[in-house]
Amino acid sequence: MKTLAKVLNVSIATISKALRDSHDIGDETKQRVIETARLLHYVPNPYASSLRKRSSNTIAIVIPEIADSFFSQAINGIESIVDQENYHALIYLTHDSYEREAKMFNDLTSGRVDGILMSVASNTKDISHIQNLQQAGIPIVFFDRVCEDVPTAKIKTDDFNSAYVATSHLLDQGCKNISLVTIEGYPSILYARKEGYKKALAERGIKYDEQHEISCSNKYTQENNIAVLKDHIAKVKPDGIIATVEHLATSTYLACEEMKLNIPQDIKVVCFTNQITAAILNPPLTTILQPAYEMGRKAAELLFWHLSGKFIQMEKENIILPSKLVVRDSTRISD
Amino acid sequence: MKTLAKVLNVSIATISKALRDSHDIGDETKQRVIETARLLHYVPNPYASSLRKRSSNTIAIVIPEIADSFFSQAINGIESIVDQENYHALIYLTHDSYEREAKMFNDLTSGRVDGILMSVASNTKDISHIQNLQQAGIPIVFFDRVCEDVPTAKIKTDDFNSAYVATSHLLDQGCKNISLVTIEGYPSILYARKEGYKKALAERGIKYDEQHEISCSNKYTQENNIAVLKDHIAKVKPDGIIATVEHLATSTYLACEEMKLNIPQDIKVVCFTNQITAAILNPPLTTILQPAYEMGRKAAELLFWHLSGKFIQMEKENIILPSKLVVRDSTRISD
Repeated sequence: MKTLAKVLNVSIATISKALRDSHDIGDETKQRVIETARLLHYVPNPYASSLRKRSSNTIAIVIPEIADSFFSQAINGIESIVDQENYHALIYLTHDSYEREAKMFNDLTSGRVDGILMSVASNTKDISHIQNLQQAGIPIVFFDRVCEDVPTAKIKTDDFNSAYVATSHLLDQGCKNISLVTIEGYPSILYARKEGYKKALAERGIKYDEQHEISCSNKYTQENNIAVLKDHIAKVKPDGIIATVEHLATSTYLACEEMKLNIPQDIKVVCFTNQITAAILNPPLTTILQPAYEMGRKAAELLFWHLSGKFIQMEKENIILPSKLVVRDSTRISD
Repeated sequence: MKTLAKVLNVSIATISKALRDSHDIGDETKQRVIETARLLHYVPNPYASSLRKRSSNTIAIVIPEIADSFFSQAINGIESIVDQENYHALIYLTHDSYEREAKMFNDLTSGRVDGILMSVASNTKDISHIQNLQQAGIPIVFFDRVCEDVPTAKIKTDDFNSAYVATSHLLDQGCKNISLVTIEGYPSILYARKEGYKKALAERGIKYDEQHEISCSNKYTQENNIAVLKDHIAKVKPDGIIATVEHLATSTYLACEEMKLNIPQDIKVVCFTNQITAAILNPPLTTILQPAYEMGRKAAELLFWHLSGKFIQMEKENIILPSKLVVRDSTRISD
């Protein structure tokens, strides 16, 4: 606080009041103190040491699915930080169910963990379980599947631009009827991707047709998804498909195979996936590769920054990391 | 105990002493009491209720890797039981490192969990961390990657027979030079698979040659494995490969591609994997499919059986569930 007072040329009392959000201090001064505190990585010592005392040395990673390369790579990113900090990470699987998520959070309020890194379930609408945890003083950072209504740090990928790039690529490859395959839930992600898709179409003067949008199950058991996809393909006859979730890659390939449609000749496919098998599929799959490792790492960094008592306005941290188009044969222009 | 005494026509005192392994009771009687207690699903009540009292309602799943279909399916099997029991499951990742595993176990002795389901790390030799936990009264059940030296329940797949079936299949398809690709560690699994491989060769009068065995890294970062495989293929010129771990499928396909070897024409490939993408690879991959879901479910059943206070001799439960050969184009006889 001494350093802060010196740098800003105000009294220590002013600094202290500003950081406690006291009414005695004007908004402008408060802002200046907070900004400078942030720049100097100010650590309010008593707070930090009390935190350290009640520490369980454990954080929770709450995710919907484990059979997913995105999440396994994100966990590797998280653990690269957790290991440095000499912490443990516990993984909680919601299986994409709000009910399971809420039940787990009840278990977490008991001080079992010091903080939480989380991707919400697709059907989570009531957020009181998350708010209860925040009120209990347990910080949360969202990654990928964020909950916009909770004021805290969020690490996302650029959903709008990813869909825009995928759609533009298919248009470049000659597609005229592009279907967007999504899953139920996650309204904010879905909205951004839809908008990116629409923008790419509009730029080429192609009219958006909601018939070209189809929603599959968020369950990884694929049988039903194959039927849904076959039905859609038979009806709409797309010449390009954007599958926005990893497990839809297999369903899409199998649906095309059962319908005797050749990829990329009859139909071109892009999938949002981090699967390492993408390169050895038949044909090799063009992907939107998300920065899973970096997202996990960044989320963990923010959480530990906060846990170490450094001054950080969590609700202002809204970080967007870019995805990348990896072009392979599934979108090749046929000879 | 009354029922047991009646059924066996002995006194309640005898039953009680036999179950406490008292020296007053002869071995034969003890054996009879224990067998009957097991058949009747005898629940020693005071023990059961004390267990219930100190319950954290949580079990730990300790596994080496998360980016692996086998483990994600096993977790689904485990959770089908955990949910029924109204428990939580926490997943601990060892990243296949003994050091991480031992550190996590220290954390687990504090009563954080009531029981553990575990696949050990490949380099775990010192088992004192596991013994400490058992001494602290926390039961452990192993699945898949078991630790033979720890006297407790073990759920395995038939490694000997799986390798025998895979090798025989390649021989049936005309292969004469079959390489066995393994990973470092797990001596008991490796031994069983080697023996199965050798037996199939011997049955056809083919001499075993240790040059045909190659060990890859257990890390899922594949770059180095591709180089190791290319080197091996160039030297030994196999016409068939058995890759015994899931992540070796991608490495093997990429190594063949880089060497311009056609699968299955130049070289046939079988892989031990539960990946759903196996069917859409180029070419579709013949697999040894392990009963991952069932193994996880059975391991959890045994653990909860024990936790509920039912009489069960954990060290005698040694369950082997069969794997299955799924034939696809990667081992097809070329036209």
